[in-house]
Amino acid sequence: MKSHLLIVGSLAFDDLEMPFGTFENVVGGAATYSALAASLFTEVRVVGVVGADFPEDTLSKIAGRGVDTRGVERANGKTFRWRGRYSKDLSSRESLDTQLNVFADFRPKIIPEYRDSQYVLLGNIHPALQLEVLSQVTAPKLVAADTMNFWISGERKLLTDVLSKVSLLTINDEEARDLSGEHALPKAARAIRGMLAADSGPRTLIIKRGEHGALLFDEHGMFFVPAYPLEDVKDPTGAGDSFAGGLLGHLTRTGDVSARSLRAAMFYGSALGSFCVEDVGPARLFTLEKQDLSRRLDGFRKMVDSHGALDGA
Amino acid sequence: MKSHLLIVGSLAFDDLEMPFGTFENVVGGAATYSALAASLFTEVRVVGVVGADFPEDTLSKIAGRGVDTRGVERANGKTFRWRGRYSKDLSSRESLDTQLNVFADFRPKIIPEYRDSQYVLLGNIHPALQLEVLSQVTAPKLVAADTMNFWISGERKLLTDVLSKVSLLTINDEEARDLSGEHALPKAARAIRGMLAADSGPRTLIIKRGEHGALLFDEHGMFFVPAYPLEDVKDPTGAGDSFAGGLLGHLTRTGDVSARSLRAAMFYGSALGSFCVEDVGPARLFTLEKQDLSRRLDGFRKMVDSHGALDGA
Repeated sequence: MKSHLLIVGSLAFDDLEMPFGTFENVVGGAATYSALAASLFTEVRVVGVVGADFPEDTLSKIAGRGVDTRGVERANGKTFRWRGRYSKDLSSRESLDTQLNVFADFRPKIIPEYRDSQYVLLGNIHPALQLEVLSQVTAPKLVAADTMNFWISGERKLLTDVLSKVSLLTINDEEARDLSGEHALPKAARAIRGMLAADSGPRTLIIKRGEHGALLFDEHGMFFVPAYPLEDVKDPTGAGDSFAGGLLGHLTRTGDVSARSLRAAMFYGSALGSFCVEDVGPARLFTLEKQDLSRRLDGFRKMVDSHGALDGA
Repeated sequence: MKSHLLIVGSLAFDDLEMPFGTFENVVGGAATYSALAASLFTEVRVVGVVGADFPEDTLSKIAGRGVDTRGVERANGKTFRWRGRYSKDLSSRESLDTQLNVFADFRPKIIPEYRDSQYVLLGNIHPALQLEVLSQVTAPKLVAADTMNFWISGERKLLTDVLSKVSLLTINDEEARDLSGEHALPKAARAIRGMLAADSGPRTLIIKRGEHGALLFDEHGMFFVPAYPLEDVKDPTGAGDSFAGGLLGHLTRTGDVSARSLRAAMFYGSALGSFCVEDVGPARLFTLEKQDLSRRLDGFRKMVDSHGALDGA
């Protein structure tokens, strides 16, 4: 049976104040980035909500990449909107405005056609909603989740409940420290892996560090992939979500969640993150071809190829 | 013929205000850290200056690690002293006070016994002094250098002259950007590699990124090693110098500056940096054994072992 990846999260409009200009009404949202990234690998199903102002044409373009958008609800009102300003070197950003709009009342409804999804990516939404999603899927093989400081400090009990049903968590350094109360990442990872589901898939924590790569912690230890150094970074928005999409896309396509497959997935995640930042918004993800991916993988291969330096060292 | 590594740079006293307490009169200096790190691999010769206040016993302890300290001059006056305060998470530091003392009049004298050194590490000193060192060594096989923003902006002409005689440069991101005028690291690396010596050894730029690892750029492309995530980081002082010491130590021991050897050296550098930060000052480097190093290398091996994930991917 063919595997599908179910992605639940936000679709949005972003207003991006970049050092080289301001871009308004850019299509965004974690689910958008993750779905577009994953669509290069596998069949993706998206659940989210948009307002009356979200162009049908944009949904069609997303669907045109092989994303099943039947699960995207259209509500009366405006689409979720975020406005942010990036620092000159793009290494940090400031949220200027967040308008939840139709996302404020979002209750994820998993349509019957989606309930058999074997791979699930719970985007960074309220833990109560993440639990509602899980109650509607029948027998997922691997559930991955993202979260953020807001839920770690404000909804810890519900979040703990989510984590106990999840086998793969992707967060950043700071979130890992807040969630575990440990500063050193190996200690934080040990604590967090202990919170994850024991019975479904390998307990895996992935710490995303933006331009500094990503660390995976699983039962085999830790594994690192660098970010791909680019000639020209235009817009980091959505890079972490694209990483998650590439990662889960690979796992879904292969149906393999072994240590080896997870490590390959880390490279695919990092590759998709690197494509994402090459243009403003998700533009690059709309044009990405399998050949682009295989060329970038060649780049990664070189970048981590020690020419056998550690053999018998 | 046995190869030796000549290291020229500072020996110092550091006063370290750490989040968990203040440590005064800690033995420091780039040459101290680099020499102790390299001494695990090879015979090291040090050129620098200390004041009347530097304990003979400390020099003996350094010599006890297999470091030839005959090139360390003792001058009338006080030893170079630096006082710094680290942020709570140790990710940044502030210089509170720098007293050059005897280092202000330092003119490196390469004693006759040192002049045949085949490997040279020019620490972060005035470019004019780096040139004086080079004029005194007879036929180095590989010259490596460190520098800093202060010389990049203030002594660019002399520094350019140094770079044209150096085949391996170790600097950080910001310095690479300042030196090249390019923000993107691949572009910066291309520009900087063009400034390096064409006739001695492979033109290699290594960008040190602290807890975020290190990137090597050479004729084969770029290569990345992560920093080793530790349970407990006590003091980052000297980590970059220990990295350089481990790196050069390996190259000197093997007498091999091939792409493979440089990539192995990156792991040794990162390993020595990771040991350095485990205790305050260079304390850990005084007790380090070859077995500790081989255990850490095992850790690195695991951390970059993709289980063949990229083979044929």
